[in-house]
Amino acid sequence: MFRDLSRPIETGMPTYPGDPEVTLAPDATHEADGYATGELRTGTHAGTHVDAPRHTLSDGTTIDEADPGRFAFDARFVDLRALAPREAIGTEALSGAVGDGSGTLGDAVDLLVLRTGWAARWGTDRYRDHPYLTEAAAAWCRDRGVGVGLDTFGPDPTASGSGSDVTAASDEPDGTPAHDALLSDSLPIVENLCGLDDLPTRFRLYAFPLRLRGGDGSPVRAVAEWERG
Amino acid sequence: MFRDLSRPIETGMPTYPGDPEVTLAPDATHEADGYATGELRTGTHAGTHVDAPRHTLSDGTTIDEADPGRFAFDARFVDLRALAPREAIGTEALSGAVGDGSGTLGDAVDLLVLRTGWAARWGTDRYRDHPYLTEAAAAWCRDRGVGVGLDTFGPDPTASGSGSDVTAASDEPDGTPAHDALLSDSLPIVENLCGLDDLPTRFRLYAFPLRLRGGDGSPVRAVAEWERG
Repeated sequence: MFRDLSRPIETGMPTYPGDPEVTLAPDATHEADGYATGELRTGTHAGTHVDAPRHTLSDGTTIDEADPGRFAFDARFVDLRALAPREAIGTEALSGAVGDGSGTLGDAVDLLVLRTGWAARWGTDRYRDHPYLTEAAAAWCRDRGVGVGLDTFGPDPTASGSGSDVTAASDEPDGTPAHDALLSDSLPIVENLCGLDDLPTRFRLYAFPLRLRGGDGSPVRAVAEWERG
Repeated sequence: MFRDLSRPIETGMPTYPGDPEVTLAPDATHEADGYATGELRTGTHAGTHVDAPRHTLSDGTTIDEADPGRFAFDARFVDLRALAPREAIGTEALSGAVGDGSGTLGDAVDLLVLRTGWAARWGTDRYRDHPYLTEAAAAWCRDRGVGVGLDTFGPDPTASGSGSDVTAASDEPDGTPAHDALLSDSLPIVENLCGLDDLPTRFRLYAFPLRLRGGDGSPVRAVAEWERG
């Protein structure tokens, strides 16, 4: 069976702070042209999307340079529920939440799908106060050759909105250290996933980027598939 | 193994006559922002893409209304090589080219991938003079419950460019009868495929549309997968 793990793409949808607005407008119409087409304007990191190494690494590869088969993932679900706003997810929390707590990933896993629960805050200022991966936790993933999917803006902290009553801890990192740890080894990051409740432990995740020439990332349709138990 | 069947998406790429120009431009930059993002402007039918029923049917469903699992196709390759410009592909040509010539599709096929050879003309005026499906051939597909993928602008004729020396036959249809025959039964159409040479007879084709709210179609990353023989 299949499940859609993707945000709708529509005019005025929530975007990462500073990213371009998304618009989807009619172009040809049935009345005037006999068929309908539209024009989409979108940031390369709008909605559910994948990051290319070029996103945070100026000498990183672009999204069209990766073999698209890499984005048919053998995914493992990791439920990190009961996290606080802006909580750091460290190596121990991550390894402890993987299956039996031994930190053993299992054969052929190439993506960890981390459920923080933050998907429920999509479209509100609180979505920006998501938990994040420490650089060490991201390096732990890198050392195991797995990329990361998340139900947040990304694996690094996002600046709070003006209405937030959450204070960043003094040791919250600047920059994009978790991105860098993963992308430096060309490990994909899939962001703004939704629909992660009650996924099976193992599934296939399709998140093929558009073939954007020189692109730093791409919106995707993220779709999970697994055998009905 | 996997094979990419998708056109690159880039500024100034070829588009269907009258469709919006495609641009992919930098937005955030490493120098100014510490990371790179871009802004994509594209028609909903640019490059390799899927059509929703709404594309040619004013009361048809939109691309976000379809179960995304429908776009993980059990595809069958149909090689129609040696076609003339603007040649009509009729029911007999189609059924004759399917496998053993009996017109039997085999179990679980839900998409015919038709290789006309027109992919080699991409980016030239001659790409517009592609062969097309007759309404009867499209209805033959519909009656078997299969959608169609093509290495052309689509299953209906495209208006010739000003430099074309090919004359349309007097019985070339107006409008979008082949589209309508397929889309009226919600059968997907995948257009502007490439890389179809020497595909196996059966493969899986992933062509998940973006979740464009109310969209009449979507650019896709079309990826074939099959077991190495």
